Amino acid sequence: MTEFNKFFAPDSLALIGASNDPRKWGFRILGNIILGGYQGRVYPINPTKEEILGKKVYKSLADVPESPDLAVIVVPPPAIVDAVKDCIDKGIKAAVVITAGFAEIGERGAALQAEIVVEAKKGGLRLIGPNCFGLVSPYQKLYSQMPPVYPPAGSLALVSQSGNVGATIARRAMLLNFGISRMVSTGNEADLHTEDFMEFLGTDDKTKVILSYVEGFKNGRRFFEVAKEVTKRKPLIMIKVGETEAGASAARSHTASLSGADNVFEGICRQTGIVRVHNINELMNVGYGFLCNPLPKGRRVAITTLGGGWGVLAADACAKLGLQVVKLSEEVLKELDSFLPGWWTRNNPVDLVAGDADVQIRVIETLARYEQADSVIALGVPFPMIWRSPMPLTEDERKKKIQDVIDHYVRVFQQIKDISVRYDKPVIIAAELFFPTVFSHLEREIKCAIAANNSFCYTMPDEAAMVLRSMVRYSEYLKRAE
Amino acid sequence: MTEFNKFFAPDSLALIGASNDPRKWGFRILGNIILGGYQGRVYPINPTKEEILGKKVYKSLADVPESPDLAVIVVPPPAIVDAVKDCIDKGIKAAVVITAGFAEIGERGAALQAEIVVEAKKGGLRLIGPNCFGLVSPYQKLYSQMPPVYPPAGSLALVSQSGNVGATIARRAMLLNFGISRMVSTGNEADLHTEDFMEFLGTDDKTKVILSYVEGFKNGRRFFEVAKEVTKRKPLIMIKVGETEAGASAARSHTASLSGADNVFEGICRQTGIVRVHNINELMNVGYGFLCNPLPKGRRVAITTLGGGWGVLAADACAKLGLQVVKLSEEVLKELDSFLPGWWTRNNPVDLVAGDADVQIRVIETLARYEQADSVIALGVPFPMIWRSPMPLTEDERKKKIQDVIDHYVRVFQQIKDISVRYDKPVIIAAELFFPTVFSHLEREIKCAIAANNSFCYTMPDEAAMVLRSMVRYSEYLKRAE
Repeated sequence: MTEFNKFFAPDSLALIGASNDPRKWGFRILGNIILGGYQGRVYPINPTKEEILGKKVYKSLADVPESPDLAVIVVPPPAIVDAVKDCIDKGIKAAVVITAGFAEIGERGAALQAEIVVEAKKGGLRLIGPNCFGLVSPYQKLYSQMPPVYPPAGSLALVSQSGNVGATIARRAMLLNFGISRMVSTGNEADLHTEDFMEFLGTDDKTKVILSYVEGFKNGRRFFEVAKEVTKRKPLIMIKVGETEAGASAARSHTASLSGADNVFEGICRQTGIVRVHNINELMNVGYGFLCNPLPKGRRVAITTLGGGWGVLAADACAKLGLQVVKLSEEVLKELDSFLPGWWTRNNPVDLVAGDADVQIRVIETLARYEQADSVIALGVPFPMIWRSPMPLTEDERKKKIQDVIDHYVRVFQQIKDISVRYDKPVIIAAELFFPTVFSHLEREIKCAIAANNSFCYTMPDEAAMVLRSMVRYSEYLKRAE
Repeated sequence: MTEFNKFFAPDSLALIGASNDPRKWGFRILGNIILGGYQGRVYPINPTKEEILGKKVYKSLADVPESPDLAVIVVPPPAIVDAVKDCIDKGIKAAVVITAGFAEIGERGAALQAEIVVEAKKGGLRLIGPNCFGLVSPYQKLYSQMPPVYPPAGSLALVSQSGNVGATIARRAMLLNFGISRMVSTGNEADLHTEDFMEFLGTDDKTKVILSYVEGFKNGRRFFEVAKEVTKRKPLIMIKVGETEAGASAARSHTASLSGADNVFEGICRQTGIVRVHNINELMNVGYGFLCNPLPKGRRVAITTLGGGWGVLAADACAKLGLQVVKLSEEVLKELDSFLPGWWTRNNPVDLVAGDADVQIRVIETLARYEQADSVIALGVPFPMIWRSPMPLTEDERKKKIQDVIDHYVRVFQQIKDISVRYDKPVIIAAELFFPTVFSHLEREIKCAIAANNSFCYTMPDEAAMVLRSMVRYSEYLKRAE
């Protein structure tokens, strides 16, 4: 595992191909490393520059006064072999090759890629890439990647064969205040593969949930064995593209990946407990679901909703996905009768017809306590009563109202989390948190505030059902595998 | 059609059950009418109050000095029959019954509901509801509905059997600056049905696209005939729930609807050209697609992307949905060769590997011109080059940069729209428009700015594919129906 420490926790790094041209990756990546706040020693390499972004530049790797833990290589393809040899001469054991133009462009590129692998193997150098966007290790404040994203430290890891899918996920996590443990774009996987990183992340105590985007496998057998081990310890959620011939063709052009038959991958998921999803929204949503909730023990779900339509949509979505919208016992119905209005419909979903937050919390607790339900879906979180007065507010009044609204939601989500923890059941919440006529911009602020307490709020009822189904699948796999 | 003018363009209205208690709908709906800016005459009715929210209150409908065009009724169920009789006595022809507690709660409620229908029929009064959230008619600035949403006037109409689904859609449209033409929550449909509103909206020149959420049909035969006529003139996009027994049971509790067998509804869609969708996101996304694009002439799609992973996801999604990711001709490849870098992958999707906006526009135009492609999906819109300097910006510099970014996107989306119009083909765009490290809040501002020019930007590649598929289905239906 030592090479992974060199990658994810280097004390020093060399950037081979540093540039002072803001259009070039050799400038932007150096900028990301500096802006990200990396505390280790940084050695930009460029034969003709003295200083870039305030950093002393070295004419060659040989001039660097130590053997850096990590090399990040951005020189063009013709200069790659020499860069790799320089790394080996310097005693470097870990390098990220950002540069594109290898196996993904055809035979000539594939030959060059093979050559650097041969050199690296000879010299004991491990490679990420080529044709990748770099790596991110927020606990080390290491942001040695192409796009300007600096996610905070957290528990979600990401292994992606696509750099732009990786960047999308990093941006979305940042936006909602969910942190990343490690993130790596593996590109063409000339040396290190997806499964190598999965294996490392499986034992990495900073990582609770692993997200992955895969176009094809270089070593399917080993991938299978690694996945089987990893899922014993933590959920592994994966987009595997190339489901169709059009997608597979696009993947070949992108990272020279061979997608393989899709039904084979479906079989792998069943046998290894990988949670397969089909798009980026699902990947993120399921990741948040696992992070914020205990595992469900079965597929029986109780639903409560502030409005009828959302409840019907959720019931349909749950049933279509194989979850069981459980019948409420006479005992539970009676308990609900005791505090719901006389005309409530005595059914699951429990429709609160726009009740207030206290009533909702009581219903969630009643449903979570119900021994025939393995989980709860809660739709809608009551807006605090804030009448939009025709009188304009002063700036102070406005700020106070905004803080009141955020505090209200933090309190309600905390109460719901307490119930989830007390009964050890997931409570998946979907609600609208935006208020176009009042404070339209608060959605992100509220989501960030509740994320600090490890809560998430989905946007739509069918998303809640989809997340719960994925968690149930993983839970059922673990039971089978025992 | 006169009753629809009374509903959607009344010169005066009575609110029967007005209240001065902010927790009651009789207060909130009056507030919505006032805050929405309704210019007609408003008559709040309450036997014990003198004035509410600055409006003179009338003790009874009989005291009102004219026969109002519209009555909005919020009194409790036991007072409903009298309220309906009062309306008839006053010569009112159109009433919305907001109040719940009728057929959806069982036999007793169903009997009461039947009674008011008998009375209304006798007196020539048409009814919306009961158990509904009201109606919205932004061209008249009429917001006589329960939730505080005031969507601007636009071209999307909505007929929903669920009030909270309707409110969700209104809020989302508002948030992104897409306007609503008419919006009605039909509730239990004791008198007027979904199909009656569809028929009206089919000939309403303010309405270009009709969105609908349906739990069940009161008159399936007439619904079928109306839908068939309406789709000749404009797209009709519909969520029909009750796909499963769990969903159907929830729908019965909600609006006393009988969902019917789901395969029957699938058959209705095929025969009438209804575009069926399965959740609120799809409903909105497809609506925007029809509003912002010409119809595709077939299912062949060319894709361009700023990053490989998104391209693969889109290709897979298109192929799974039955779209054809078309092979590019040698002629098109040569044209792209002339301005793309030598190592581009000569495939569809056309991967720009983070090119700039000018290159992207040239690629989109080349693909739109290609006679073998019926539409284009464009993934990613290049971010303008704004290096995040370590130096802090002044407030003025920051404001200027923000405006520059918004202007950049408005320009790029305008260029793309011009191409779409010139070649009469849809160009569906999905891109990330948020920048957590720079200006994270601009996503909404940019989307609102481009909406003013009737452009929309989807969030994910698979959304673009789904929207295009729905448009292709409608287009193919129209060809078959000719």
